[in-house]
Amino acid sequence: MMPERDLQYLADLAAQLRVDSVRAAAEAGSGHPTSSMSAADLMAVLFACHLRYDFDEPGNPANDQLIFSKGHASPLLYSLYKAAGVISDEELLSFRRRGSRLEGHPTPRLPWVDVATGSLGQGLPVGVGVAMAGRLERLPYRVWVLCGDSELAEGSIWEAAEHAGCEGLANLTAIVDVNRLGQRGPTRHGWDTGAYARRFGAFGWHTIEIDGHDPGQIDYALSDACNTRRRPTVILAKTRKGEGVLEVENREGAHGKALKDPDKAIDELGGPRNVRIEVRRPPSDAPPPYLFGTRPLSLPAYKVGEKIATREAYGEALAALGAARGDVVALDGEVADSTKTATFGEEFPERFFEMYIAEQQLVAAAVGLQVRGWTPYAATFAAFLTRAYDFIRMAGVSRASIRLVGSHAGVAIGEDGPSQMGLEDLAMLRAVYGSTVLYPCDANQTAALTAEMADVEGVSYLRTTRGATPVIYPPGERFPVGGSRVLRHSPGDRATIVAAGVTVHEALAAADELAAAGTPVGVIDLYSVKPVDSAVLIEAATTTGNLITVEDHRLEGGLGDAVMDAVSELGPRVVKLAVTGLPGSATPEEQLADARIDRHAIADAVKHSL
Amino acid sequence: MMPERDLQYLADLAAQLRVDSVRAAAEAGSGHPTSSMSAADLMAVLFACHLRYDFDEPGNPANDQLIFSKGHASPLLYSLYKAAGVISDEELLSFRRRGSRLEGHPTPRLPWVDVATGSLGQGLPVGVGVAMAGRLERLPYRVWVLCGDSELAEGSIWEAAEHAGCEGLANLTAIVDVNRLGQRGPTRHGWDTGAYARRFGAFGWHTIEIDGHDPGQIDYALSDACNTRRRPTVILAKTRKGEGVLEVENREGAHGKALKDPDKAIDELGGPRNVRIEVRRPPSDAPPPYLFGTRPLSLPAYKVGEKIATREAYGEALAALGAARGDVVALDGEVADSTKTATFGEEFPERFFEMYIAEQQLVAAAVGLQVRGWTPYAATFAAFLTRAYDFIRMAGVSRASIRLVGSHAGVAIGEDGPSQMGLEDLAMLRAVYGSTVLYPCDANQTAALTAEMADVEGVSYLRTTRGATPVIYPPGERFPVGGSRVLRHSPGDRATIVAAGVTVHEALAAADELAAAGTPVGVIDLYSVKPVDSAVLIEAATTTGNLITVEDHRLEGGLGDAVMDAVSELGPRVVKLAVTGLPGSATPEEQLADARIDRHAIADAVKHSL
Repeated sequence: MMPERDLQYLADLAAQLRVDSVRAAAEAGSGHPTSSMSAADLMAVLFACHLRYDFDEPGNPANDQLIFSKGHASPLLYSLYKAAGVISDEELLSFRRRGSRLEGHPTPRLPWVDVATGSLGQGLPVGVGVAMAGRLERLPYRVWVLCGDSELAEGSIWEAAEHAGCEGLANLTAIVDVNRLGQRGPTRHGWDTGAYARRFGAFGWHTIEIDGHDPGQIDYALSDACNTRRRPTVILAKTRKGEGVLEVENREGAHGKALKDPDKAIDELGGPRNVRIEVRRPPSDAPPPYLFGTRPLSLPAYKVGEKIATREAYGEALAALGAARGDVVALDGEVADSTKTATFGEEFPERFFEMYIAEQQLVAAAVGLQVRGWTPYAATFAAFLTRAYDFIRMAGVSRASIRLVGSHAGVAIGEDGPSQMGLEDLAMLRAVYGSTVLYPCDANQTAALTAEMADVEGVSYLRTTRGATPVIYPPGERFPVGGSRVLRHSPGDRATIVAAGVTVHEALAAADELAAAGTPVGVIDLYSVKPVDSAVLIEAATTTGNLITVEDHRLEGGLGDAVMDAVSELGPRVVKLAVTGLPGSATPEEQLADARIDRHAIADAVKHSL
Repeated sequence: MMPERDLQYLADLAAQLRVDSVRAAAEAGSGHPTSSMSAADLMAVLFACHLRYDFDEPGNPANDQLIFSKGHASPLLYSLYKAAGVISDEELLSFRRRGSRLEGHPTPRLPWVDVATGSLGQGLPVGVGVAMAGRLERLPYRVWVLCGDSELAEGSIWEAAEHAGCEGLANLTAIVDVNRLGQRGPTRHGWDTGAYARRFGAFGWHTIEIDGHDPGQIDYALSDACNTRRRPTVILAKTRKGEGVLEVENREGAHGKALKDPDKAIDELGGPRNVRIEVRRPPSDAPPPYLFGTRPLSLPAYKVGEKIATREAYGEALAALGAARGDVVALDGEVADSTKTATFGEEFPERFFEMYIAEQQLVAAAVGLQVRGWTPYAATFAAFLTRAYDFIRMAGVSRASIRLVGSHAGVAIGEDGPSQMGLEDLAMLRAVYGSTVLYPCDANQTAALTAEMADVEGVSYLRTTRGATPVIYPPGERFPVGGSRVLRHSPGDRATIVAAGVTVHEALAAADELAAAGTPVGVIDLYSVKPVDSAVLIEAATTTGNLITVEDHRLEGGLGDAVMDAVSELGPRVVKLAVTGLPGSATPEEQLADARIDRHAIADAVKHSL
């Protein structure tokens, strides 16, 4: 049993965390004090007794990792930082103000926050990724994730439960603040922690049900989690939202609001205190993370004229990159034989992660791995990355450097039909903050861009094609992000065709046909869809004044829009060819023809534009 | 026990289904025969003994509903249709060919298919929606969903399990074809049906584990499902992929390919047969679906000059619509007090569905409800609709008519920060096949558009704003889809500002300021972002030749791109103002200013453009 003195300290600390949460929200006039108050005891005991973290050195690889999956409890997190002595009371009271690091939901603007949260159900899947990294690094740090009970309704939580349970990630502990109340009323299971325990238990987790306001029980549960082998642990803590203040305690309608009478609440909580937490540092003799070897990069080379799918080149280039760089890891959504990530998986099984058909966890694991400095590539069909859009969006907010690869893009896949066709991926990825979008047309370009991506910051995306396309670039050429290639150009060009991926080959065929018929046109390979090569596009817009864009993607938000955006202030004519109908089954050639993005449609569009 | 004669019939039928699956894939040269063969016995018994379906009248409300969640087993589905006598052998062999209704994955081009599948993990959540409709209609039809084992890794499956389990949807039966093999190798749990049973059991389902090739066991399990009260049932059927053909049976590497030697396979399966299924019709004395009353629509009216949030107007208009139309149902993702769906929920509790924080199931339930003729509105924060993008995309492929409402759009939400800001929603929704995207700026316009959406086909989207905006339109005006409103216009206009939602008010303020300073500019309220009012935009582009677009959304894929697309063949100058940075916390006014989309930034952009 915990000594009375310690219990008193923890009670005082928790009371201070509640007071500071109330104060921060009162000063801001908004925020989530009640969701902070329910979890105050849980976090007081974690910070005071179990967390090992060097606040002076957030990058210390031996540090435990903490994620507030219930990001709206940010006042509690910031109050903990104050108690730990890393932010001042003045900064605490800047909560939610313009320019403050203490945003409504935590983001990596704070050096101790690794990933942004606030979209519920994401912290635990990302925590799974961090825990996977711990195993790879052979380091004993622990990953602590504070979850709300409402967010357990998200499917992504159960993708995380499945992965962590099956992999036996014992370094991962989820602490669930079961305060019974969601935003607009009671949760589905209320205080029935058994309902959650049955679910997590079925997924292979060690489960502990406790009173989340009893420091002794909390301490026991956290110790139990640390001592549990071969299984992740979930602590299901029954708590009261707004605990300690009659006005809001366990009441509906008190979510996400500052308290009406903060002074009275602070009195009820025993007034302000000055309790400090001495957070334990990780052992100074902790081993360094395990590193995999490096050697010079030798990318695959393809002969000009050879026909090979860009997805094949991606697979081979990724394997080459894996040999060169020990920091590269690869993940796949149970389609590695299609995306061709399998090549990497065979050569580097330790750095390959089969995430099965769980695209949210696929992306979240990549985010978690990059938190620890790994360079992840995550692949599935372009169509199925839509499943993870919220995770990709939040990766942008986290400024996470992850590499996504979408294969089987566009109608060019052929017979499988619209469910398998990535036709919205360029729009989806372009709209993400700080993203990079690449779409190669041949094998050597793909290999070069695969390597290029390794050092791109933020969310980057490579779009690959199912079928074989001819190699048009010699091996060894560089294709910088933001660049393009002018493939056909003459002073007499009547128009310029801008294409990427499969449509580059259609554009070249159309240009040759048009040139033979006496109408020279330019062709630009816009392999970097974001950022685009504005200079080259503006040059084309200025000289021919007549741009034809063609893409195997929906009309909205893709390559055509990127081109128009680059030249909009000049005002050239732009004709966009893209997929507008609903494809069915057909051969790749038939699909391109039916969508009016093949060589004949391009030639027609050029003629019509003159 | 089943009589020997029946067992022989079922074995013959299953063998024929396998033969026809092999033949269809062989003729196409691709497809998924092995995934069809594992489930042939399951579906033979379902069709011959339990399904009640009138193939002559697919719209008969008493029909059972069948969804192939494992849509790649389409050869099996089409073979069943042939055995039921609704497609010819010739049509069966048109599988995956251009123009054929028998696509690679089933779509509603076939009259007996209600929703497109092929993106795994979607059929069960949609089935939950259909089962919810059954309860609402007070009809005894059953919903049968054939799932693969691989897709149980998708979080969306567990959102469905949670909703169906907690709601006790006894009319829903999931039949899982546990064939042990995914696309690239073994699934996580192989033939451990107990692992799945523990999970479904924990979520409140009745579970049955059987040998999926034993017609007697299958028949017993299907009967048991029909007789189970107050709980959905999952039948976990251990099967062998490619069952019956040595070349592929239970072998890795045989996924998604036509068989190498189809003639030999057909011999092994006992050769072609001509077994017919007499599918039982639903009882002819089945009651009609329960209908809720209708009455004339009386939309809320707001006084010009009043300040009210568009989300408030949405809530009140939806409640008014609910009173007028008994076919309208509403769903919400546990934020009904924010989206204001709560108003509807209070007035029509029977037609309101709380889906908790499970956005995939939220959208899937809407798709399922519209299958049965309901008119669903599904709401959450615009930011969190990204969670359901794959479901929205597939709703487009299904040509499903669902109405999505995203509140708290843009940086204008203020302090909560980027995780809560819908900044990608316009790009995401515009790229969906057949979608309609609406973004009102005032309360009366919102009310009108809310009502307008009820009759829009396909996926439609309404974007609402958190904060109050002034009412600028008198009540009772119509705002047709595809329209716009010219709010400022004079012959001397030097530029035209195109805005929607919150930026309309900023644009008006900027225009007034500019006019006062001697620079008249036009202002267009582009409330219909897709389709756009090309005529009005082209008119503006022709007269002022200088367009300034301004939107509370990312630069990519939103209103600015829609405008550019409409006028691209004319080539006016277009300057786009949109959110390019990463916002933090700040007041709504500060956010608009920081993003350079407020009145001052607009006025500056106009001046700079002249």
